[in-house]
Amino acid sequence: MEVNIERLDHVAIQVRDLERSLGFYMGTLGLRLQERTEVPERRLKKALLAVGLGRIELIEYENRPIPTADGPVAHIALEVQDIEEALAELSKEGVSLEDQKPREIGGDMKIAFLRGPDQELIELVEKP
Amino acid sequence: MEVNIERLDHVAIQVRDLERSLGFYMGTLGLRLQERTEVPERRLKKALLAVGLGRIELIEYENRPIPTADGPVAHIALEVQDIEEALAELSKEGVSLEDQKPREIGGDMKIAFLRGPDQELIELVEKP
Repeated sequence: MEVNIERLDHVAIQVRDLERSLGFYMGTLGLRLQERTEVPERRLKKALLAVGLGRIELIEYENRPIPTADGPVAHIALEVQDIEEALAELSKEGVSLEDQKPREIGGDMKIAFLRGPDQELIELVEKP
Repeated sequence: MEVNIERLDHVAIQVRDLERSLGFYMGTLGLRLQERTEVPERRLKKALLAVGLGRIELIEYENRPIPTADGPVAHIALEVQDIEEALAELSKEGVSLEDQKPREIGGDMKIAFLRGPDQELIELVEKP
Protein backbone atom coordinates (compact mmCIF):
# COMPACT_ATOMS: atom_id res chain seq x y z
CA MET A 1 0.00 0.00 0.00
CA GLU A 2 1.15 3.51 -0.67
CA VAL A 3 1.00 6.62 1.45
CA ASN A 4 -1.67 8.97 0.17
CA ILE A 5 0.14 12.27 -0.46
CA GLU A 6 -2.22 15.15 -1.27
CA ARG A 7 0.25 17.87 -2.19
CA LEU A 8 3.55 19.59 -1.54
CA ASP A 9 2.49 21.87 1.31
CA HIS A 10 5.67 23.93 1.60
CA VAL A 11 9.44 23.92 1.47
CA ALA A 12 11.19 25.24 4.59
CA ILE A 13 14.30 27.41 4.73
CA GLN A 14 16.18 27.96 7.97
CA VAL A 15 17.19 31.61 8.35
CA ARG A 16 19.33 33.48 10.84
CA ASP A 17 17.24 36.66 10.85
CA LEU A 18 13.59 36.45 9.80
CA GLU A 19 13.30 40.21 9.22
CA ARG A 20 16.32 40.24 6.94
CA SER A 21 15.04 37.23 5.00
CA LEU A 22 11.56 38.75 4.66
CA GLY A 23 13.30 41.79 3.19
CA PHE A 24 14.80 39.53 0.55
CA TYR A 25 11.83 37.26 -0.20
CA MET A 26 9.16 39.97 -0.04
CA GLY A 27 11.08 43.13 -0.86
CA THR A 28 13.43 41.82 -3.53
CA LEU A 29 11.64 38.74 -4.88
CA GLY A 30 8.17 40.23 -4.38
CA LEU A 31 6.58 37.20 -2.69
CA ARG A 32 3.40 37.70 -0.66
CA LEU A 33 3.22 37.11 3.11
CA GLN A 34 0.55 34.58 4.00
CA GLU A 35 1.07 34.10 7.73
CA ARG A 36 3.50 34.93 10.54
CA THR A 37 3.80 32.89 13.72
CA GLU A 38 5.87 33.12 16.88
CA VAL A 39 6.17 29.97 18.97
CA PRO A 40 8.05 31.01 22.15
CA GLU A 41 7.93 27.55 23.74
CA ARG A 42 9.69 26.11 20.69
CA ARG A 43 11.93 29.18 20.48
CA LEU A 44 11.15 29.88 16.87
CA LYS A 45 9.41 32.35 14.65
CA LYS A 46 8.35 31.68 11.13
CA ALA A 47 6.61 33.11 8.10
CA LEU A 48 4.76 31.52 5.20
CA LEU A 49 5.07 33.13 1.78
CA ALA A 50 2.87 32.32 -1.20
CA VAL A 51 4.58 31.56 -4.53
CA GLY A 52 1.86 30.88 -7.05
CA LEU A 53 0.05 27.91 -5.52
CA GLY A 54 3.19 26.84 -3.63
CA ARG A 55 4.54 28.09 -0.32
CA ILE A 56 7.93 28.83 1.18
CA GLU A 57 8.33 28.75 4.97
CA LEU A 58 11.11 30.78 6.57
CA ILE A 59 12.05 29.61 10.08
CA GLU A 60 14.29 31.44 12.55
CA TYR A 61 15.35 29.32 15.53
CA GLU A 62 16.66 31.09 18.61
CA ASN A 63 19.30 28.49 19.37
CA ARG A 64 20.24 26.62 16.26
CA PRO A 65 23.26 27.46 14.12
CA ILE A 66 22.68 28.09 10.43
CA PRO A 67 24.07 25.32 8.19
CA THR A 68 27.08 26.43 6.20
CA ALA A 69 26.80 23.88 3.38
CA ASP A 70 23.97 22.72 1.11
CA GLY A 71 22.04 19.76 2.50
CA PRO A 72 20.26 16.88 0.73
CA VAL A 73 17.26 19.18 0.15
CA ALA A 74 19.44 21.10 -2.23
CA HIS A 75 17.59 24.05 -3.73
CA ILE A 76 14.28 25.63 -4.63
CA ALA A 77 13.45 26.60 -8.21
CA LEU A 78 11.34 29.68 -8.92
CA GLU A 79 9.83 30.35 -12.32
CA VAL A 80 10.18 33.84 -13.78
CA GLN A 81 8.87 35.31 -17.00
CA ASP A 82 12.07 37.08 -18.00
CA ILE A 83 15.25 35.69 -16.50
CA GLU A 84 17.59 38.38 -17.94
CA GLU A 85 15.44 41.10 -16.40
CA ALA A 86 15.32 39.23 -13.08
CA LEU A 87 19.11 38.81 -12.99
CA ALA A 88 19.65 42.48 -13.83
CA GLU A 89 17.31 43.52 -11.01
CA LEU A 90 18.91 41.13 -8.50
CA SER A 91 22.39 42.24 -9.48
CA LYS A 92 21.36 45.87 -8.87
CA GLU A 93 20.13 44.84 -5.41
CA GLY A 94 23.50 43.29 -4.62
CA VAL A 95 22.21 39.70 -4.52
CA SER A 96 24.89 37.00 -4.74
CA LEU A 97 24.55 35.51 -8.25
CA GLU A 98 26.23 32.22 -9.08
CA ASP A 99 25.42 32.71 -12.76
CA GLN A 100 25.83 36.24 -14.13
CA LYS A 101 24.08 35.12 -17.31
CA PRO A 102 21.39 32.48 -17.78
CA ARG A 103 22.46 29.04 -18.92
CA GLU A 104 20.44 27.44 -21.70
CA ILE A 105 19.47 23.90 -20.97
CA GLY A 106 17.31 21.50 -23.00
CA GLY A 107 13.96 22.50 -24.48
CA ASP A 108 14.70 26.25 -24.65
CA MET A 109 14.69 26.52 -20.87
CA LYS A 110 16.99 29.05 -19.26
CA ILE A 111 18.22 28.75 -15.69
CA ALA A 112 20.47 30.67 -13.30
CA PHE A 113 21.48 30.04 -9.69
CA LEU A 114 21.79 32.55 -6.88
CA ARG A 115 22.16 32.55 -3.10
CA GLY A 116 19.66 33.89 -0.56
CA PRO A 117 20.61 35.68 2.68
CA ASP A 118 21.66 32.43 4.42
CA GLN A 119 23.37 30.95 1.37
CA GLU A 120 20.29 28.93 0.50
CA LEU A 121 20.56 27.91 -3.15
CA ILE A 122 17.84 29.33 -5.41
CA GLU A 123 17.36 28.51 -9.09
CA LEU A 124 15.52 30.83 -11.45
CA VAL A 125 13.83 29.14 -14.40
CA GLU A 126 12.44 30.70 -17.56
CA LYS A 127 10.36 28.44 -19.76
CA PRO A 128 9.62 29.00 -23.44
CA MET B 1 11.34 47.13 -8.58
CA GLU B 2 10.63 43.56 -7.69
CA VAL B 3 11.44 40.34 -9.49
CA ASN B 4 8.34 38.86 -11.04
CA ILE B 5 8.11 35.32 -9.62
CA GLU B 6 5.43 33.22 -11.30
CA ARG B 7 5.50 30.11 -9.12
CA LEU B 8 7.52 27.58 -7.15
CA ASP B 9 8.58 25.31 -10.00
CA HIS B 10 10.16 22.54 -7.93
CA VAL B 11 12.25 21.67 -4.92
CA ALA B 12 15.38 19.62 -5.63
CA ILE B 13 16.78 16.77 -3.54
CA GLN B 14 20.27 15.43 -4.13
CA VAL B 15 20.28 11.63 -4.01
CA ARG B 16 23.03 9.00 -4.09
CA ASP B 17 21.08 6.44 -6.09
CA LEU B 18 18.20 7.62 -8.28
CA GLU B 19 16.67 4.13 -8.59
CA ARG B 20 16.63 3.65 -4.83
CA SER B 21 15.10 7.08 -4.28
CA LEU B 22 12.46 6.48 -6.95
CA GLY B 23 11.60 3.30 -5.06
CA PHE B 24 10.95 5.43 -2.00
CA TYR B 25 9.17 8.41 -3.58
CA MET B 26 7.11 6.42 -6.08
CA GLY B 27 6.83 3.01 -4.45
CA THR B 28 6.42 4.02 -0.83
CA LEU B 29 5.07 7.58 -1.04
CA GLY B 30 3.10 6.92 -4.22
CA LEU B 31 4.22 10.01 -6.14
CA ARG B 32 3.83 10.03 -9.93
CA LEU B 33 6.80 10.22 -12.32
CA GLN B 34 6.53 13.19 -14.65
CA GLU B 35 9.86 13.11 -16.47
CA ARG B 36 13.26 11.40 -16.40
CA THR B 37 16.40 12.92 -17.89
CA GLU B 38 20.01 11.85 -18.24
CA VAL B 39 22.58 14.57 -18.94
CA PRO B 40 25.88 12.76 -19.53
CA GLU B 41 27.88 15.94 -20.21
CA ARG B 42 26.85 17.28 -16.79
CA ARG B 43 27.27 13.78 -15.28
CA LEU B 44 23.84 13.72 -13.75
CA LYS B 45 20.51 12.01 -14.05
CA LYS B 46 17.31 13.32 -12.61
CA ALA B 47 13.61 12.69 -12.27
CA LEU B 48 10.65 15.01 -11.74
CA LEU B 49 7.78 13.77 -9.58
CA ALA B 50 4.37 15.43 -9.38
CA VAL B 51 2.96 16.13 -5.90
CA GLY B 52 -0.44 17.73 -6.40
CA LEU B 53 0.42 20.85 -8.39
CA GLY B 54 3.96 20.92 -6.98
CA ARG B 55 7.03 19.01 -8.11
CA ILE B 56 9.99 17.32 -6.49
CA GLU B 57 13.19 16.87 -8.50
CA LEU B 58 15.56 14.06 -7.55
CA ILE B 59 19.12 14.56 -8.84
CA GLU B 60 21.91 11.98 -8.82
CA TYR B 61 25.36 13.44 -9.59
CA GLU B 62 28.08 11.06 -10.66
CA ASN B 63 30.84 12.83 -8.76
CA ARG B 64 29.41 14.79 -5.89
CA PRO B 65 29.29 13.51 -2.32
CA ILE B 66 25.93 13.47 -0.57
CA PRO B 67 25.64 16.09 2.20
CA THR B 68 25.58 14.53 5.65
CA ALA B 69 23.81 17.39 7.47
CA ASP B 70 20.67 19.44 6.78
CA GLY B 71 21.34 22.59 4.77
CA PRO B 72 19.63 25.99 4.80
CA VAL B 73 16.88 24.56 2.55
CA ALA B 74 15.83 22.45 5.50
CA HIS B 75 12.90 20.21 4.64
CA ILE B 76 9.90 19.59 2.42
CA ALA B 77 6.41 19.26 3.87
CA LEU B 78 3.90 16.88 2.28
CA GLU B 79 0.21 16.99 3.12
CA VAL B 80 -1.53 13.69 3.88
CA GLN B 81 -5.16 12.96 4.67
CA ASP B 82 -4.50 10.60 7.58
CA ILE B 83 -1.16 11.01 9.31
CA GLU B 84 -1.56 8.03 11.68
CA GLU B 85 -2.25 5.74 8.74
CA ALA B 86 0.71 7.20 6.82
CA LEU B 87 3.09 6.69 9.77
CA ALA B 88 1.88 3.11 10.27
CA GLU B 89 2.46 2.35 6.60
CA LEU B 90 5.91 4.00 6.58
CA SER B 91 6.92 2.19 9.76
CA LYS B 92 5.94 -1.13 8.16
CA GLU B 93 8.14 -0.23 5.18
CA GLY B 94 11.10 0.36 7.50
CA VAL B 95 11.26 4.12 6.86
CA SER B 96 13.28 6.11 9.41
CA LEU B 97 10.71 8.03 11.49
CA GLU B 98 11.82 10.92 13.70
CA ASP B 99 8.35 11.05 15.29
CA GLN B 100 6.70 7.71 16.03
CA LYS B 101 3.46 9.57 16.74
CA PRO B 102 2.16 12.81 15.25
CA ARG B 103 2.73 16.02 17.20
CA GLU B 104 -0.25 18.34 17.52
CA ILE B 105 0.60 21.93 16.72
CA GLY B 106 -1.66 24.99 16.57
CA GLY B 107 -4.99 24.98 14.75
CA ASP B 108 -5.59 21.21 14.99
CA MET B 109 -2.71 20.51 12.64
CA LYS B 110 -0.72 17.34 13.13
CA ILE B 111 2.84 16.92 11.92
CA ALA B 112 5.55 14.26 11.98
CA PHE B 113 9.09 14.20 10.62
CA LEU B 114 10.87 11.39 8.84
CA ARG B 115 14.03 10.87 6.80
CA GLY B 116 14.24 9.88 3.13
CA PRO B 117 16.88 7.54 1.68
CA ASP B 118 19.62 10.22 1.80
CA GLN B 119 18.60 11.60 5.19
CA GLU B 120 16.61 14.39 3.56
CA LEU B 121 14.15 15.73 6.13
CA ILE B 122 10.48 15.27 5.22
CA GLU B 123 7.53 16.60 7.22
CA LEU B 124 4.08 15.06 6.96
CA VAL B 125 1.20 17.44 7.67
CA GLU B 126 -2.44 16.62 8.33
CA LYS B 127 -4.84 19.55 8.35
CA PRO B 128 -8.25 19.60 10.00
